[in-house]
Amino acid sequence: MTWLDTSIMARRGVAGGEQRDRHTITEAEQGTYHYVYGPYAAPKLMVKPGAVITVETHDAFEGKIKSESDKPSEILNFPYLNPQNGPIHVEGAEKGDALAVRILEIRPRGPQPVGTTCLIPEFGGLVSTANTAMLNPPLPERVRKVEVDPVTGVKWSDRITLPYEPFIGTLGTSPEIEAITSLQPDYYGGNMDLPDVAPGAIVYFPVNAPGALLYLGDCHAAQGDGELCGVAIEHPTTTTVQVDLIKGWTLAWPRLENETVMMTIGSGRPLEDACRIAYRELTRWMASDYGFDELDAYMLLTQAGRVRLGNMVDPKYTVGASILKRYLTA
Amino acid sequence: MTWLDTSIMARRGVAGGEQRDRHTITEAEQGTYHYVYGPYAAPKLMVKPGAVITVETHDAFEGKIKSESDKPSEILNFPYLNPQNGPIHVEGAEKGDALAVRILEIRPRGPQPVGTTCLIPEFGGLVSTANTAMLNPPLPERVRKVEVDPVTGVKWSDRITLPYEPFIGTLGTSPEIEAITSLQPDYYGGNMDLPDVAPGAIVYFPVNAPGALLYLGDCHAAQGDGELCGVAIEHPTTTTVQVDLIKGWTLAWPRLENETVMMTIGSGRPLEDACRIAYRELTRWMASDYGFDELDAYMLLTQAGRVRLGNMVDPKYTVGASILKRYLTA
Amino acid sequence: MTWLDTSIMARRGVAGGEQRDRHTITEAEQGTYHYVYGPYAAPKLMVKPGAVITVETHDAFEGKIKSESDKPSEILNFPYLNPQNGPIHVEGAEKGDALAVRILEIRPRGPQPVGTTCLIPEFGGLVSTANTAMLNPPLPERVRKVEVDPVTGVKWSDRITLPYEPFIGTLGTSPEIEAITSLQPDYYGGNMDLPDVAPGAIVYFPVNAPGALLYLGDCHAAQGDGELCGVAIEHPTTTTVQVDLIKGWTLAWPRLENETVMMTIGSGRPLEDACRIAYRELTRWMASDYGFDELDAYMLLTQAGRVRLGNMVDPKYTVGASILKRYLTA
Amino acid sequence: MTWLDTSIMARRGVAGGEQRDRHTITEAEQGTYHYVYGPYAAPKLMVKPGAVITVETHDAFEGKIKSESDKPSEILNFPYLNPQNGPIHVEGAEKGDALAVRILEIRPRGPQPVGTTCLIPEFGGLVSTANTAMLNPPLPERVRKVEVDPVTGVKWSDRITLPYEPFIGTLGTSPEIEAITSLQPDYYGGNMDLPDVAPGAIVYFPVNAPGALLYLGDCHAAQGDGELCGVAIEHPTTTTVQVDLIKGWTLAWPRLENETVMMTIGSGRPLEDACRIAYRELTRWMASDYGFDELDAYMLLTQAGRVRLGNMVDPKYTVGASILKRYLTA
Repeated sequence: MTWLDTSIMARRGVAGGEQRDRHTITEAEQGTYHYVYGPYAAPKLMVKPGAVITVETHDAFEGKIKSESDKPSEILNFPYLNPQNGPIHVEGAEKGDALAVRILEIRPRGPQPVGTTCLIPEFGGLVSTANTAMLNPPLPERVRKVEVDPVTGVKWSDRITLPYEPFIGTLGTSPEIEAITSLQPDYYGGNMDLPDVAPGAIVYFPVNAPGALLYLGDCHAAQGDGELCGVAIEHPTTTTVQVDLIKGWTLAWPRLENETVMMTIGSGRPLEDACRIAYRELTRWMASDYGFDELDAYMLLTQAGRVRLGNMVDPKYTVGASILKRYLTA
Repeated sequence: MTWLDTSIMARRGVAGGEQRDRHTITEAEQGTYHYVYGPYAAPKLMVKPGAVITVETHDAFEGKIKSESDKPSEILNFPYLNPQNGPIHVEGAEKGDALAVRILEIRPRGPQPVGTTCLIPEFGGLVSTANTAMLNPPLPERVRKVEVDPVTGVKWSDRITLPYEPFIGTLGTSPEIEAITSLQPDYYGGNMDLPDVAPGAIVYFPVNAPGALLYLGDCHAAQGDGELCGVAIEHPTTTTVQVDLIKGWTLAWPRLENETVMMTIGSGRPLEDACRIAYRELTRWMASDYGFDELDAYMLLTQAGRVRLGNMVDPKYTVGASILKRYLTA
Repeated sequence: MTWLDTSIMARRGVAGGEQRDRHTITEAEQGTYHYVYGPYAAPKLMVKPGAVITVETHDAFEGKIKSESDKPSEILNFPYLNPQNGPIHVEGAEKGDALAVRILEIRPRGPQPVGTTCLIPEFGGLVSTANTAMLNPPLPERVRKVEVDPVTGVKWSDRITLPYEPFIGTLGTSPEIEAITSLQPDYYGGNMDLPDVAPGAIVYFPVNAPGALLYLGDCHAAQGDGELCGVAIEHPTTTTVQVDLIKGWTLAWPRLENETVMMTIGSGRPLEDACRIAYRELTRWMASDYGFDELDAYMLLTQAGRVRLGNMVDPKYTVGASILKRYLTA
Repeated sequence: MTWLDTSIMARRGVAGGEQRDRHTITEAEQGTYHYVYGPYAAPKLMVKPGAVITVETHDAFEGKIKSESDKPSEILNFPYLNPQNGPIHVEGAEKGDALAVRILEIRPRGPQPVGTTCLIPEFGGLVSTANTAMLNPPLPERVRKVEVDPVTGVKWSDRITLPYEPFIGTLGTSPEIEAITSLQPDYYGGNMDLPDVAPGAIVYFPVNAPGALLYLGDCHAAQGDGELCGVAIEHPTTTTVQVDLIKGWTLAWPRLENETVMMTIGSGRPLEDACRIAYRELTRWMASDYGFDELDAYMLLTQAGRVRLGNMVDPKYTVGASILKRYLTA
């Protein structure tokens, strides 16, 4: 028995956490990728709870940045950025339910150097942007292509190799009536850029529209806390997830569990609001599901809560707040 | 000759600022109101530059809050809030153009007391919200219905009558591929809740989608700076606007002119980012169109710029930054 | 009878709002100016309530920026900036009281061009700073010297003359045990850079230390909302204020009244927190002193409150929230 | 040989990282504790670089909260909170130098239950505060006393025991002319509430005043990221630190090293500004001392930087940004 057997997905999922039908969405099958999370696109795939789906994701630039001499400002065409696979319609999913997405595997796809990072004008955590608008001159553009190998890692330079720690940068369900750029994270998931959304984790999203309409893309081979310059090691991948459906579990924001922690995920600006959202959600979760008095939960998180900064560069910033499972079930 | 003759609309508009065809959208003609700003709804009306359009707007609650004993939390059904008229397709408008919207008249519509304000749980500038998430208990709900008369004003109480100073709370064009809740303001306008968007002003919006797709609604009979509790004196109206089209004028954010000032409008969080956006736009505008060196413009705004706080309650906060026209054309 | 006769100072002041003893602090008498607001400096002057005090203020650069070819970064020596007159000890003032400061007159002092503004590296509202830390290259430095005349105004350029609208940029009382840079505004006043702190206004400050210990300096000849580049039209002045003491009026933040409005002043970051502070103070003031139910006050301010942005450049941002007196006393 | 031998303290310190003279400051010797970080208090101790100093710290409440039935709002007397030992004058320290503080040991002091946490009205990360000012009713006050044992841990409840992971909550040098409440963190250190400031770490602070004037106090037995309710497991301790002096190393903000990472520490509001400060400092450090091109450093931190949230409750929020030493010296 593993932790999976006691996961929320296993205990409450329509498929009981079992892997059932297998599906694929290749690049060719996907055809047109999507740039918004919304209910207006036709489903690319209809699946049942328990489905295991393997998709071929593009990198965030749809592969258009091919060499270190490319100029992002000339190549990228806003808002056609961060292409997403899907949407995937999950049978039976209705507003008020939760969609469970277990991340099974992420593998690089395509010829080396398969990883891309770059400096994009007016984008990033330490530069003037369209939102934090300054008059300072911009930084120069710069592209870096890096080899990514699941075993040997991310070859940053002759001196430095980073471990391959892949995760899904953008993942979530459709809003009910909105269609929101895939560059943004919010209550339905989206561009959270949170490294915990990795193989070994199950992420739970609110279902807002019939069929949930799962989108995903933007896998990162490595990323530091905050995704500082705005561009992680972007890479195209073959990514496999398992979905399940939890009826009647109404979430305000995404939640995540893995072997050791329960996490809540908040996105907002300023950054303290993202932290507040995540920590309030966690406080309430401890009160509703784990027998804590709400104020005791608040006080315990003061001593034992952990915060992971996902991004500090996207239209909303994202953090995960977590607590060790062993404190919840003690 | 009035200031209108030298307005940007008159000088650069396809219709030269002339009023041409007249149209109406009654409540019945509108039928279904809209809750997102986006390109996915069929146009309700097709017009040419110079068109004068009279629409019957709902109040932000679609008239559902009828008495002071109503409970907003029981009546309001998120995200079906802030109903909008339109979209109005303006012939010839393409991405990269600007849409001019001159506000001609706003009149209350319907039986007294026609004005509504209220306290809504988890919404407002001085309370815990879904974004600035706190554990404090909520304030009680409260509804206030007030008589609104264009001549005698807004009868707040036996002691206090406020002047009738109506404006359009939510006004703007469609994003290119996004469909965003009408509760939010952003680069395309939307729920700015800025009192300057009033009769006597011309507002310029970026065109992002073919036909511009103008939406409007949410008229306020009176509002203080910041719309503090989140709900101004909301009222249904008969509102008349004139549209014109400025080809090739590419705006990043809305702009406004009236008899005395030029204004740029920014929306963001935290509030200083909204100010930065608005002031940077104004600085750049002075440099591109009024012969200022950019740093001189920055220094002059330091001495003579004015800031109007629109809202500090919506998903993004809105401010207008302005300068007297006489300093631009001296 | 004027509004002064019904001012809080007149109604509650120990001197009943009367002007009594007259004092001066010339530049020579001041000798050493101060760069912190704190209780550790010996009083420069001991006065009684009702005292009228004329002081010779320096400009914020202590007169060191003498020509347009000066380089601020070479001349200015942080933290020895924004020199303050005082402290002035007011007899009888104790923690828990309020100090009333009526601003009587501000006149330019010294040879023309007496006004200075400039761009300082890493300082200002639209540039990377020590707090909003970016990697972008800085803007160039630039100094502008301008003639300032109380009658003809501030001669910005051949084309543009701004009205002379002087106010005290930095004014307040000492904290109890802290000594805080005169560059910062806070609950005790300080570097608020709020244009309403002008002749015709009475400002009320919390008394935190025995004798209140009033400091003042940093007069501006003109300033836009937000003091955008961080440097208004700085000028040395002869400034006259009248002080009075209100026993037992315990304030959390500064308040201001003039002929038409009551205002509360908040300072903080992000800017919405400054607004929240100011508006909550105003709400509570309306409830405690003007017979409003607190939630009614909150709702009325939503319709009739006004916000003035003081600065968006100092260590804390400052706003004033106000309401027309006629709504308070209706 | 350990990492200490190659630490900055060992390589550049006046004492070469050696432990020399030993000193103590008992509670009785300290006598009056301090509530501001500033240059106005007489040094309690004069030491030379290499000194090892053992101090008896109070808890943040000076031991006044004795039982779970105490009411913090009745007992605590702002601004006389967070009592500090010191100041300790380090011979030879001048403005422009850096003070190294190696944390050797922290042991609980006094009778059980020696640990205290509590909910204080208008203070904390998920409640309305004096800064993020709301009208919501406050939470109830609540005190929790917990047993703290270095070996068996922090006995939170019958079910939950947290590891004893002590650190110094408030530690730093004096500002040059300011005296700032010990509740605040800033460029000189102070109330950072950052769990990395623990035994095993060396923290480097800018010297701003002659002798550096080291203050310390506020030790925590355990704390989660953000110190959510504002009060960690506070406890009185016997704490031992070693100081050294690095001449001519001019720091803008505190830095920290331990066996595995180099960290920079930023404090500010909003929280993204604290992150920006920390990350910009780290970028610049990598460029100045470790041979990185500045933009390469920025891009590498995007992939490999780590962020630790210290506090999201104090007058400024604190974060540490870090990178593995092995990437710096590869």
